[in-house]
Amino acid sequence: MITEPRTLPGFMELLPNEQILFEQMKEKIEKTYQKFGFLPLDTPILELSEILLAKAGGETEKQIYRFQKGDTDISMRFDLTVPLAKYVAKNYGNLSFPFRRYQIGKVYRGEKAQKGRFREFYQCDIDIIGDGELGIINDAEIPSVIYNLIKEIGFEDFTICINNRKILNGLFESINQKENSTDILRAIDKIDKIGKEAVIEELQQLNVTKDGIEQIMNFIAIDGNNDEKILKLKELNISNEVFQSGVEELTQVVKYIRIFGVPDTNFKIDLTIARGLDYYTGTVYETFLNDYREIGSVCSGGRYENLAEYYTDKKLPGVGISIGLTRLFYKLNEMSLIKADKYSMADILIIPMLEDMTKPIEIASELRKRNINTEVYLSDKKLKTKFKYADKLKIPYVIVLGEDEIASNKVKVKNMETGEETQVSFDADEIVKIIK
Amino acid sequence: MITEPRTLPGFMELLPNEQILFEQMKEKIEKTYQKFGFLPLDTPILELSEILLAKAGGETEKQIYRFQKGDTDISMRFDLTVPLAKYVAKNYGNLSFPFRRYQIGKVYRGEKAQKGRFREFYQCDIDIIGDGELGIINDAEIPSVIYNLIKEIGFEDFTICINNRKILNGLFESINQKENSTDILRAIDKIDKIGKEAVIEELQQLNVTKDGIEQIMNFIAIDGNNDEKILKLKELNISNEVFQSGVEELTQVVKYIRIFGVPDTNFKIDLTIARGLDYYTGTVYETFLNDYREIGSVCSGGRYENLAEYYTDKKLPGVGISIGLTRLFYKLNEMSLIKADKYSMADILIIPMLEDMTKPIEIASELRKRNINTEVYLSDKKLKTKFKYADKLKIPYVIVLGEDEIASNKVKVKNMETGEETQVSFDADEIVKIIK
Repeated sequence: MITEPRTLPGFMELLPNEQILFEQMKEKIEKTYQKFGFLPLDTPILELSEILLAKAGGETEKQIYRFQKGDTDISMRFDLTVPLAKYVAKNYGNLSFPFRRYQIGKVYRGEKAQKGRFREFYQCDIDIIGDGELGIINDAEIPSVIYNLIKEIGFEDFTICINNRKILNGLFESINQKENSTDILRAIDKIDKIGKEAVIEELQQLNVTKDGIEQIMNFIAIDGNNDEKILKLKELNISNEVFQSGVEELTQVVKYIRIFGVPDTNFKIDLTIARGLDYYTGTVYETFLNDYREIGSVCSGGRYENLAEYYTDKKLPGVGISIGLTRLFYKLNEMSLIKADKYSMADILIIPMLEDMTKPIEIASELRKRNINTEVYLSDKKLKTKFKYADKLKIPYVIVLGEDEIASNKVKVKNMETGEETQVSFDADEIVKIIK
Repeated sequence: MITEPRTLPGFMELLPNEQILFEQMKEKIEKTYQKFGFLPLDTPILELSEILLAKAGGETEKQIYRFQKGDTDISMRFDLTVPLAKYVAKNYGNLSFPFRRYQIGKVYRGEKAQKGRFREFYQCDIDIIGDGELGIINDAEIPSVIYNLIKEIGFEDFTICINNRKILNGLFESINQKENSTDILRAIDKIDKIGKEAVIEELQQLNVTKDGIEQIMNFIAIDGNNDEKILKLKELNISNEVFQSGVEELTQVVKYIRIFGVPDTNFKIDLTIARGLDYYTGTVYETFLNDYREIGSVCSGGRYENLAEYYTDKKLPGVGISIGLTRLFYKLNEMSLIKADKYSMADILIIPMLEDMTKPIEIASELRKRNINTEVYLSDKKLKTKFKYADKLKIPYVIVLGEDEIASNKVKVKNMETGEETQVSFDADEIVKIIK
């Protein structure tokens, strides 16, 4: 009986050319993380539910893939942060702080299936974890990693938006709306979507005073370049300590971001972003491709005061970001902003037209020793079929090896894109010269 | 409330230095696969149970992580072969054959937890899939990949054992024991563990005739070098067609393996290996580190006649191998055959002793542009603490940047292993020269 071959909805499965492109993008992200000295980490996809859900609740918990195996209550990880918290608490004594790690791995959320939404997707995270304390300068290094990374994957016109949660929290405190801050943040967060008037209406419904609303709207209205925004923040003359500490941190972060070489064209203070409602405690980031804001933030994160409070008494402040690679790849590919035009990992295909395979295989081994990915067409087919294979896979170079080539000790290296053939002596070094 | 940070038993979670070593090994395997022109593939970890279990049964099925999510019966993959079968059947029209793919990914088996056994582990697979047919020469290319791969990960003294299932099947047919072949194979498979006499006893219990047992024992007794073994196989004068076809295939594979450059010191015919009892139909492989046979086969696989028979009517013969990387890594590490002596991804640590971080960060950016993984120590600590960090992470080089260095435009690059300090002008190119 034949079972129709299907893949679960919401699970990405790519054709080889797309997969090659995906791997290239993943590798660029990984190499960038490594260049900044982040350490690799690979935690299990399955964890004890009591560990994974020590903190979670609400929307996330509903989406979790959770099941029983024997007596064990198991869940699939839904992000890489909770496993990191567990890992750092568990291995505290064996780690050096600041602990800088990256992790690239699949996470699982049983979201409603819809186009462009994935239930299994890659997150690419970095975090810097301090032992007891972590200087504000780290909050500025993170955007410089983002900056290098987005450029590395091929975009120039993007904006890293920065804010500080203390500014928002302090503002709410100063107008006696601390208890409402979550709701107010949620309202403010929507300003791009619903507009100013609708936000004011929501604030009124939250019983914010007229003065309070004015204060909030003045705050949101702050514009100008980064330095002007900081100046205007100071000019609000809000004496609340949390607010002032937030402004001071933001000032520092902006100063250091510049030192880290991120130009003002690629980052800006955006006082409306809040990111997650209870997790972040200081600096927060979102990153947008300027011409494609509709993709949403491609790289987000922030500062948190206490990474592992559910697993240890140790205070472990940190700052980090995450890239949702699967969705990003899907969107960029869908919008043709990236192109899956590599169909083979081979740089060259050797096509033997001989009984004796010794020479074709020998030259392939020699080429591989010289770091050339080399495939030998091993099936006994007509020359036309063999070339069709090279064509379909867009393998850049082809060598046909027949009796003539062996006798004359010369081969033609065919550039499959241009059709150009270059005759060289039958020698790996000579062939490499053409390919490189 | 604090939840004790725990990881599920049977799930590997490494410290950073071990993780770096693991990643290095994984990368070596991946690069080797790519060098032979295999295409990357990444299929979901979750599949519909009806897909994943279309064939499975017995031991495997019991071990599967299977659960219900909404109305969907979901299973976690237990190998990479079944997902490949589904993928090829599903994407048949979009693939070029022979389809050569590699996949490196985690698979899940709820085995009894014990030391060195993992419930989540990496498999590193390659397969070559033909459309309708696949020449025997492909069975010889696979061992040449294994050969290159094991050398790449640092071992010279290993043996790729080769057999052909048709030889075994033909032998059993010729003694009218075809129905018993699974049991006989199982008995033969144990000869290294239980010895010759115990095997004979088992064969008697299976009601194999005296002549039959003699034939089997003559067969198992075949020794000598590879050519001698083939000669002795032919001299058994078993006229059974399947047997003869198997011997002919083995002869071809041995001939081609040599052409593929695998020396006779690294491969041998081993007529007792059978590998899986119903999956493989021709050539089979197992690979052993000669001095560490107790690790078991580090790389196994073989030829199968029909990859995707459960999902398509298309005949898709293939040949492939799999490396159980997690277990291999665990064993090699446990036996100190590999050494996790790299504790940082950074090639150099910049230690600033300045108020103004501009110069330290600038030089770090310049070094990164030159492909040097560079970390800046950003926390405000004493010089001693900063050096201790570099020491503990065994970062190869350190530069201290203070007022003196900026003023004189000269820096000392300290080799942390030798303690040697080299003074160069404060210039990225000069620093790179020391490091490289």
